[in-house]
Amino acid sequence: MKIGIDMMGGDFAPAEAVKGIQQFLETASSNTELVLIGDEARIRPLLDGALKDSTRLSIVHAPETIDMHEHPTKALKNKPNSSINLGFRLLAQENIQAFISAGNTGAMMVGALYSIKTIEGIQRPTISTTVPRQNGTTGILLDVGINSDCKPENLLQFAILGSLYAKNILHISNPRVALLNIGEEEGKGNLLVQAAYPILRDSPKINFIGNIEGRDIFGEKADVIVCEGFTGNVVLKLAESFYDIAVTRNIQDDFLLKNFNFESYGGTPVLGIAEPVIIGHGISKAPAFKNMISLAELMLESRLLDKIKENFNS
Amino acid sequence: MKIGIDMMGGDFAPAEAVKGIQQFLETASSNTELVLIGDEARIRPLLDGALKDSTRLSIVHAPETIDMHEHPTKALKNKPNSSINLGFRLLAQENIQAFISAGNTGAMMVGALYSIKTIEGIQRPTISTTVPRQNGTTGILLDVGINSDCKPENLLQFAILGSLYAKNILHISNPRVALLNIGEEEGKGNLLVQAAYPILRDSPKINFIGNIEGRDIFGEKADVIVCEGFTGNVVLKLAESFYDIAVTRNIQDDFLLKNFNFESYGGTPVLGIAEPVIIGHGISKAPAFKNMISLAELMLESRLLDKIKENFNS
Repeated sequence: MKIGIDMMGGDFAPAEAVKGIQQFLETASSNTELVLIGDEARIRPLLDGALKDSTRLSIVHAPETIDMHEHPTKALKNKPNSSINLGFRLLAQENIQAFISAGNTGAMMVGALYSIKTIEGIQRPTISTTVPRQNGTTGILLDVGINSDCKPENLLQFAILGSLYAKNILHISNPRVALLNIGEEEGKGNLLVQAAYPILRDSPKINFIGNIEGRDIFGEKADVIVCEGFTGNVVLKLAESFYDIAVTRNIQDDFLLKNFNFESYGGTPVLGIAEPVIIGHGISKAPAFKNMISLAELMLESRLLDKIKENFNS
Repeated sequence: MKIGIDMMGGDFAPAEAVKGIQQFLETASSNTELVLIGDEARIRPLLDGALKDSTRLSIVHAPETIDMHEHPTKALKNKPNSSINLGFRLLAQENIQAFISAGNTGAMMVGALYSIKTIEGIQRPTISTTVPRQNGTTGILLDVGINSDCKPENLLQFAILGSLYAKNILHISNPRVALLNIGEEEGKGNLLVQAAYPILRDSPKINFIGNIEGRDIFGEKADVIVCEGFTGNVVLKLAESFYDIAVTRNIQDDFLLKNFNFESYGGTPVLGIAEPVIIGHGISKAPAFKNMISLAELMLESRLLDKIKENFNS
């Protein structure tokens, strides 16, 4: 099993990626091999200092790098030998089984959507965020930004994808799915959620529990929270800002400091495409890289994508 | 100047309303008279115990009460002598100059929209929330729930209403207006905000500074934050839940405990209708009632509604 890592993506590349790889190799018991994609001249010296045993590592030299603020499609076209392009090429050719990057999010999305196929039956791939709860468990909120205008059917698909993720990755046996809304009763909300409610309620593929409100997101009512990507993105970034407020104000609270540090979760898989692709935050540091590698491993070990394919083609 | 107060609205009526009135009378230096609308047999004993000087108070007996969970339009129709119905009647007849209630929100909205006219030129009245910032100032976010599907022109009107509120009530001389979005650049976001951006940018009536993201809501970039009511309501309730988390976890932080206690802000005016109507949270206690009375007074003293009328008819 080989996982490809874009070594040039993110604000602290490649040093933090190397540290994350080191942490992963020190703690993980698997035999997963890591393929480091990036500027070999910059990666090699960092590896030599940090890693004694490099038998599970290989480097694929990428002479070009897509910067964080480049236009996604232009950059992908103009830099065919960038680490992101090479990563998707390796993934498409099955030389790696998963691809991780904390680089240009737009380029990662475009690459995922066009280099790797969407799973048959899925209208719109989606990205999600982990939702911490005070009882120590985590849920999932999706979509958080790539589908800012949705149809009701899209929300059902997000609910199914989120449920499969919650079962296989978060180990929740019968995940409760809720629709994010501005009231609890059926009939509340905007036209989208009014139309989505009966579709979610009537689907045999999910355990739909009804609407929840903004105040319930970090509560324990639901395991999978579904919304269009506009609201989801605002919620995610607002929640991230609460972590920043906690740090700025020196609030000593484990729940806020640990569980609301979204950066530590690593990254989000692009659910709905045919291979595991994980996109990290630009500010990813070593623990985020380590967690993204572990997540890619778990996605492969749990056969999450096969289960998604089966679900959408049955 | 007479301000009408629904004494029967909210979970702690009428006791907390009486306490709030007491606090207002003790601290406010104005000559504002308060008209207490509700069940006289329940109000009178509370007043006799609490208030020595009752020259600035009068009671209008309302033999009926609309409960918190009644269907708004049915309740308004079936209970013509409810405190909410009487309040709007007094307001429409100019026997009071403002009306406050922490009662059934739906009934208050329906009453505001149908008993009191919308100001000419305003398509959709709006409700808002105060936004606390770490530097001690406050901003305003609107709409927070009554307009869950909007057109771009609605967002411009919210921006103008919010700006006038920020100027006259929050005393911000040239309020910076931002569009809540999922990216900073023009062109980001869903179809609504993409279409709203140029309309806001080109309006001479507001000081538009562009898009802000979820992480900026409780920052200091903007004074007036505009969005449709679905996202705004989710944001408001999510922010309220952070106060609950702070209390539950015994986080000793003034900013979270004081400024995020949204209940203490009192209520929201229904901006865009022709008379001051303020709707409070069902859990309103004395400080909320006091603050709602002060807000009504400030709305009258500042001639906010005249300024809104001038703005929309020029």
